[in-house]
Amino acid sequence: MRSAICERLGVEFPLFAFSHCRDVVAAVTNAGGFGVLGAVAYSAEQLDTELSWIDAQVGGRPYGVDVLVPGRTEGPRATVPESHLSFTTGLLQRYGVPFAASPAGFGDRVSARGATELIEVALRHPVGLIASALGPPPPQMVSMAREAGVPVAALVGTVEHARRQVEAGADIVVAQGTEAGGHTGEIATMVLVPQVVDAVAPVPVLAAGGIASGRQMAAAMALGAEGVWCGSVWLTTEEAETPQSVKRKMLAASSLDTVRSRSRTGKPARQLASAWTAAWDSGEDSPGPLGMPLQMVLAESAMARVVQAAERGEPGAVELANYFVGQVVGQLDQVKPARQVVYEMIEEFGDAIERLSRLTG
Amino acid sequence: MRSAICERLGVEFPLFAFSHCRDVVAAVTNAGGFGVLGAVAYSAEQLDTELSWIDAQVGGRPYGVDVLVPGRTEGPRATVPESHLSFTTGLLQRYGVPFAASPAGFGDRVSARGATELIEVALRHPVGLIASALGPPPPQMVSMAREAGVPVAALVGTVEHARRQVEAGADIVVAQGTEAGGHTGEIATMVLVPQVVDAVAPVPVLAAGGIASGRQMAAAMALGAEGVWCGSVWLTTEEAETPQSVKRKMLAASSLDTVRSRSRTGKPARQLASAWTAAWDSGEDSPGPLGMPLQMVLAESAMARVVQAAERGEPGAVELANYFVGQVVGQLDQVKPARQVVYEMIEEFGDAIERLSRLTG
Repeated sequence: MRSAICERLGVEFPLFAFSHCRDVVAAVTNAGGFGVLGAVAYSAEQLDTELSWIDAQVGGRPYGVDVLVPGRTEGPRATVPESHLSFTTGLLQRYGVPFAASPAGFGDRVSARGATELIEVALRHPVGLIASALGPPPPQMVSMAREAGVPVAALVGTVEHARRQVEAGADIVVAQGTEAGGHTGEIATMVLVPQVVDAVAPVPVLAAGGIASGRQMAAAMALGAEGVWCGSVWLTTEEAETPQSVKRKMLAASSLDTVRSRSRTGKPARQLASAWTAAWDSGEDSPGPLGMPLQMVLAESAMARVVQAAERGEPGAVELANYFVGQVVGQLDQVKPARQVVYEMIEEFGDAIERLSRLTG
Repeated sequence: MRSAICERLGVEFPLFAFSHCRDVVAAVTNAGGFGVLGAVAYSAEQLDTELSWIDAQVGGRPYGVDVLVPGRTEGPRATVPESHLSFTTGLLQRYGVPFAASPAGFGDRVSARGATELIEVALRHPVGLIASALGPPPPQMVSMAREAGVPVAALVGTVEHARRQVEAGADIVVAQGTEAGGHTGEIATMVLVPQVVDAVAPVPVLAAGGIASGRQMAAAMALGAEGVWCGSVWLTTEEAETPQSVKRKMLAASSLDTVRSRSRTGKPARQLASAWTAAWDSGEDSPGPLGMPLQMVLAESAMARVVQAAERGEPGAVELANYFVGQVVGQLDQVKPARQVVYEMIEEFGDAIERLSRLTG
C-alpha cells in the first residue's frame, strides 16, 4: 500500500499488532504488518531476551515495543490494604481457588523508572517504534527515542489527550475507542478518530478499538486514520500464549460479554465479564477497586492463581478467569495462525474498498 | 449512487434522516436523502397534518415515518408513585423551576394501540418506509405495511435482536451502535454493523450511531451497511425545533458530554449529561428511574417545564435541560441548513472513497 506511514516505517501494510507474545509480533511483521511487543509484563532481562529472539526471526523487518507509562500512580511505597487482601482471598475461596495474597515485584515496572529501563533495553535493538500506552510520554522517553531516531506513538481516548500527547512529543497518535480491549475511554472509535485526525494533523493517526477484520480496517481508514492498531484479534491466534481456558471463553463470547471495569488495574479497562469483574464492580461486599498500580499488583497475583486452576479445569476458577479484550471478541470464533489473520484482513480490506468504489462509479 | 437500497426506495443518496421536525424531513428528502419523521410525540390528527405538509413540500420524493413500539411496558394503567413525583418536584425546585407533577396523556401513544393508530395515519400518505424504534415490529404493523407495499425498518442494538426483527418481518435493519443518541445498546457501531450485516444477509442494513459526516458515512458503508441513519446531526440545523437553550448546549458540548441514562424514558437512552441525569443516576436521594412508559410520562412533563424556563434564560433550568443526542455532538459546532449538511456529507463521502482508492492504487 502506498501511504506516508508505510514509507516512514518501512511497512507493506499499515496493520499494527499489539501483543504480549513474541511469536505474534514476529508472525505479523513477517506477514507484512507491524508487530508491537507489549513489554509491561517483562523485566529488563526478559525483554532483552524476547527482542533478541524477535530480531532473529524478522530479518530486519520493522517491529516495535509498547511500555505502560502511567501518568500518575499512588507511588511504589503504598501497600494493598487489609480489607482488599481479605476480599480477594475470600472471593477466590468462594470459587474454590486457595489463595493467600502476597503482592510483590509487579508494581515496580509500572512506574516511570521501570518504563525507562525497558525503553533503554528496547533501544539497544533495531526497534522501529516505541509506544506509550497510558498518559503522555515522559520527556526522557521522547528524548531517548529521538536520539535513537525511533518514532514515539501514544494511545489516547480523547481529543484533549491527543493534543497533549503531540505537545509532549508523540510522532504518531493511536486514537482508541471505547470498544477496545484494555485501558480505554468512553468515546467510540467512529466518533473519536475523525476528531483526533483533525485535531493533530499532520501528525499521523492510527485507529484502535473495534478493528479485527478488513472491513473494519477500511472503515477506520475512511475515518482518516493512516493505519490500524489491533490487539484483541491476536489473542485467539495459534501463536498467542492466552491460557486455553481464557481462549475458550473468548471463542464462545459475544460482543455483549465484555465490560469496562477497574477491577484488574485500577483504571477502566475493557475485559471479559466474569465472576471477578462482577464481584468487584457490583458485589455487595466489594470494597471497590484500588488505584493503579495497587489494584494491578493485587489482581495480577490473584489472577495468576485463578488461571492456573482454570487450566486444570476447575469450574469455579473458570468462572473467575478473564483477560483484557475488546468488543470484537464476538467476531472471534476460530483459532487461526496470526499470518492468516493478516492475509485475510488485507484481502477483505481490498474487497471493501473495491465495493465502495463501485458505489460511486 | 448506484446501490440496491437506492433503487428500491427511489433515493439518490442512502442517507436517512431521523427527525421530529417536518422541516428537516422535507429538506433532507428534497436534497436527495430520505427524511424520516419521528411520530411518537404526535397525536393521530397532528401526524396527519404534518404528513400533509411534507407531501406538499417534497413533490413525490420519498420519506418515511418512525413510530416507537415498545416491546414490553408496565401497561397504561400503572401510575407514577408518590416517591418519584416528590423527587421530581423537589429536584426542579432546587434548580428554581416551579413544578407540580401531573402526568397525563403522553403515555398512551407509547403503546401498541397508539402505534397502530399512527401507522394507519401514515399509510394514508405516500410514505416510503415505516420504522419501528423499539422491539420487533408487531405483526399488525408488518401486515398493514405489507398490504400497502411499504417496507418496514427496525432499529437493533444486538445481532440477536436483528435476527428476531427479520423473523418478525423487518425488510430493512438499522444497526445502531452505543454511540448513538436516544435508545441504544452497549455495542459500538464499528463492531455491531459487520456482525449484523453477516447475520441477516441479504436483508439490507443501515448503520446508525456515530455518523454525522461523509467520512463516517464512508466508514459505515465500508463495514457493509447499504446506507446510514442519522439523528443527532439534524438537531443543530437551522430547521430543527430544538429549543435554543438546548441547541447552545449541544454546540458547546464535547463527545464526553453525553451519558446513557434511564432518566428520561425508563430505558437506557444516550442524551446530554445535565443536572437532570446526574440527579437521577447518581443523586444520593434518587429513587431510581421507573420503567417505560412511566418514567417517560414523568420526565416529559417535567422537562417541558424545564425547557420553558431555560428558554427564558433561567440558569437553574439551563443546568437541568438536556435532550437525546449521540457522541457526535462533539462535532456539531455550527448551525447550518439541513440541505447544506446533506451536500457536505455527499461531498466528503466521495472524497473519502477517492482517498481510499488511491491507497490501494
